[in-house]
Amino acid sequence: MPREWPPPDTKRAPSVVTYPVAVSEAPEFEAVRTAAQRAAAAAPGVRAAGGAAVDAALRTAADLLREKAPELLAANGADVEAGEASGMAAGLLDRLRLTPERLADMATQLEVLADTPEPPTERYVRDLPTGERVFERSIPVGVIGAVFEARPNVTVDVASQVLKARSAAVLRTGAAALGSATALVENVIAPALTAHGIPADAVQLVPGSDHESVKHLMRLRGLVDVLIPRGGAGLIRAVVEESTVPVIETGVGNCHVYVDKDADLDMAVEIALNSKAQRVSVCNSAETLLVHLDVADRFLPKALAALTAAGVTIHGDDTVRAVDPTALAATEEDWAAEYLALDLAVKVVPSLDAATEHIRRYGSGHTEAIVTRSLAASRRFIAGCDSAAIMVNASTRFTDGERFGMGAEIGISTQKLHARGPMGLAELTSTKYLVVGDGQIRETS
Amino acid sequence: MPREWPPPDTKRAPSVVTYPVAVSEAPEFEAVRTAAQRAAAAAPGVRAAGGAAVDAALRTAADLLREKAPELLAANGADVEAGEASGMAAGLLDRLRLTPERLADMATQLEVLADTPEPPTERYVRDLPTGERVFERSIPVGVIGAVFEARPNVTVDVASQVLKARSAAVLRTGAAALGSATALVENVIAPALTAHGIPADAVQLVPGSDHESVKHLMRLRGLVDVLIPRGGAGLIRAVVEESTVPVIETGVGNCHVYVDKDADLDMAVEIALNSKAQRVSVCNSAETLLVHLDVADRFLPKALAALTAAGVTIHGDDTVRAVDPTALAATEEDWAAEYLALDLAVKVVPSLDAATEHIRRYGSGHTEAIVTRSLAASRRFIAGCDSAAIMVNASTRFTDGERFGMGAEIGISTQKLHARGPMGLAELTSTKYLVVGDGQIRETS
Repeated sequence: MPREWPPPDTKRAPSVVTYPVAVSEAPEFEAVRTAAQRAAAAAPGVRAAGGAAVDAALRTAADLLREKAPELLAANGADVEAGEASGMAAGLLDRLRLTPERLADMATQLEVLADTPEPPTERYVRDLPTGERVFERSIPVGVIGAVFEARPNVTVDVASQVLKARSAAVLRTGAAALGSATALVENVIAPALTAHGIPADAVQLVPGSDHESVKHLMRLRGLVDVLIPRGGAGLIRAVVEESTVPVIETGVGNCHVYVDKDADLDMAVEIALNSKAQRVSVCNSAETLLVHLDVADRFLPKALAALTAAGVTIHGDDTVRAVDPTALAATEEDWAAEYLALDLAVKVVPSLDAATEHIRRYGSGHTEAIVTRSLAASRRFIAGCDSAAIMVNASTRFTDGERFGMGAEIGISTQKLHARGPMGLAELTSTKYLVVGDGQIRETS
Repeated sequence: MPREWPPPDTKRAPSVVTYPVAVSEAPEFEAVRTAAQRAAAAAPGVRAAGGAAVDAALRTAADLLREKAPELLAANGADVEAGEASGMAAGLLDRLRLTPERLADMATQLEVLADTPEPPTERYVRDLPTGERVFERSIPVGVIGAVFEARPNVTVDVASQVLKARSAAVLRTGAAALGSATALVENVIAPALTAHGIPADAVQLVPGSDHESVKHLMRLRGLVDVLIPRGGAGLIRAVVEESTVPVIETGVGNCHVYVDKDADLDMAVEIALNSKAQRVSVCNSAETLLVHLDVADRFLPKALAALTAAGVTIHGDDTVRAVDPTALAATEEDWAAEYLALDLAVKVVPSLDAATEHIRRYGSGHTEAIVTRSLAASRRFIAGCDSAAIMVNASTRFTDGERFGMGAEIGISTQKLHARGPMGLAELTSTKYLVVGDGQIRETS
């Protein structure tokens, strides 16, 4: 796209620009553009349907998840089999797999979301000095695009959150889960929408499985209102840097657990173990354990033994390897890694400030935990970390939309604008101001 | 920048990515990067200084605006002279010019901002089912970049808002105002900061006047946390589409006034006149007047006469030109124009819905006004327009941070994410969650 800088129209008086932005008509965007156009055409129908119809559709979808479990598990089984055949890593296979229990969890989350009351849609802001009343009203965003990894449950999570927020969705799942996602849309979401008078086109799955479709989706500025990438760090960064559609950055989780010199060391072992090993394939699991020097010789033997017993591979600095000679030597890459596997980088630090400095340098702004009995240490740690969530004496695994009371989350924002941490209904909604007067004009500049 | 898609690191297990993102070290970015690095180095000092010191610095800056008026007006006079010599349009010259009155207004706005109480910095969110307490805390964004047109007062507006929000600023003014902006930073802002123990480097002016500096600024991802472009439509669009630094889109104002069939026509004339002609060089002035067919023959003669008497050039459709044969024929470009001049496009529409359809097609999402006595019509207009602000029986000119009680605004957001309408302190602040527990670990997935 060659372009003069600044574009020629800035030099004109009057300046002229056409809104809304023209959507690219490049033929290679056609399949994705068609999906987005269907979603855009359905969006007013979602908005008009009203909250009660959307909630009813979510409950019907929950029922269908249970009723259609055999079909859904069959479609997912084929995806898993193909994944295994292609040598997919264990963590990724875990994300891909549906089980009756996971379907039941998904159904429960839909019901929780349906039961979640809508936040107030209008708030009074103030009266202007000239007498007009100002209100702020929530409005649907319109068309929300999401690009996510091969996790079938995310198809339902994202679609349900978008619908609850009265928008339409264009979903692009990881290729390995396309069969599962298609089964979920066709057997669960579309019929649930139709049953309650909402256009089934409101949830679109981008067809095909090549990576080009992501590039096309992120160029549909003017048709897609916001794009939420989830999944691999490289994918997220590429979308964030290249998309012309506004993006909410989510979910790369290089999370840390810091064990302070004033920690309850038994608690610290439990929190480290839970943060790392309770579930490895999720962004809120810990990837690095930082240990204050003063407690290293009491904490490390116990902690490393427990972690190793849980199957965790340790990547340690020299102090750590002196305690556990079987630990691998940690490199710069380990401090920066989101393993998504039973690997943990472990480092001994001389002070709390050294820990927060390490986190600022290598962290991804997701979740950091401190274990300490000292109020002053907790305050200093909170002030030193600007991540989306800071845990004091709790596992990093608690950064989670369902735990935070939002129903299933659409993602965990790690950026500083618009939303931070788990994103649910409120974070998927926009606003407009209303100014209601009786003829006011402005007298002064 | 050639790049594999997806980037290679997504294919690795464990996946590895380094955070924070490495800032480009390309030599051509050096001047802008140096300014941003100074701001980044000063940012912790702003954060640590505390609200009282920042408010005191804002008051000192207000005093200095008055004391240093002769120096400031002299520097600005040189800029204005150069602008006139280069044939700058009247609207742009108006934006460029400082007067004793405008300096006094700027000083007053600084004092209003200093007096504005900080919103609460922490709110309780909920208790998790496992007993941890969740809080949300406001945090400074860090380094805020702003690119703006040749309006010297904006240098002070933006710097003061950023400082009040406890962040540091990297400012890139339109080349025509660089002398004025430099005088304001050197005579007013820097000494006010120093006087209250805040690093003067917290407000950086990007040196030089070539357009390349904007391109460099928008590539400083990882060093600049957010970029706010103000000014010409072409500039804003280019930044929005090309920046890798997160952007808040602002301020292109193709604002509409719609005169409903149930309007008070005298009120409608006043609101149209005020929206268009009270000040032409600002984004909240109206560019198109839409008139319901049923009142066109009663409204148009009176309105067009008043507008013409105020010096407004009318660009009308056929019905309008039948009433006023001196009106120019409106083209597609006129409907899409942000004139920033005494020009107004005027169209007769058959219905309220035709008006909102026109606005959705051509509007920039800034401000739309309806003049009507009908409650039903106002509700239908509000529902039909998703712009940042909707005025009912009031001038479009009221979309304004100072009027909305925010002190001087940093810009008027026209995007759907993060902020909408005038942006002040709250919109320049980020948040993080705190979860305070006593050893909780997660038992279920």
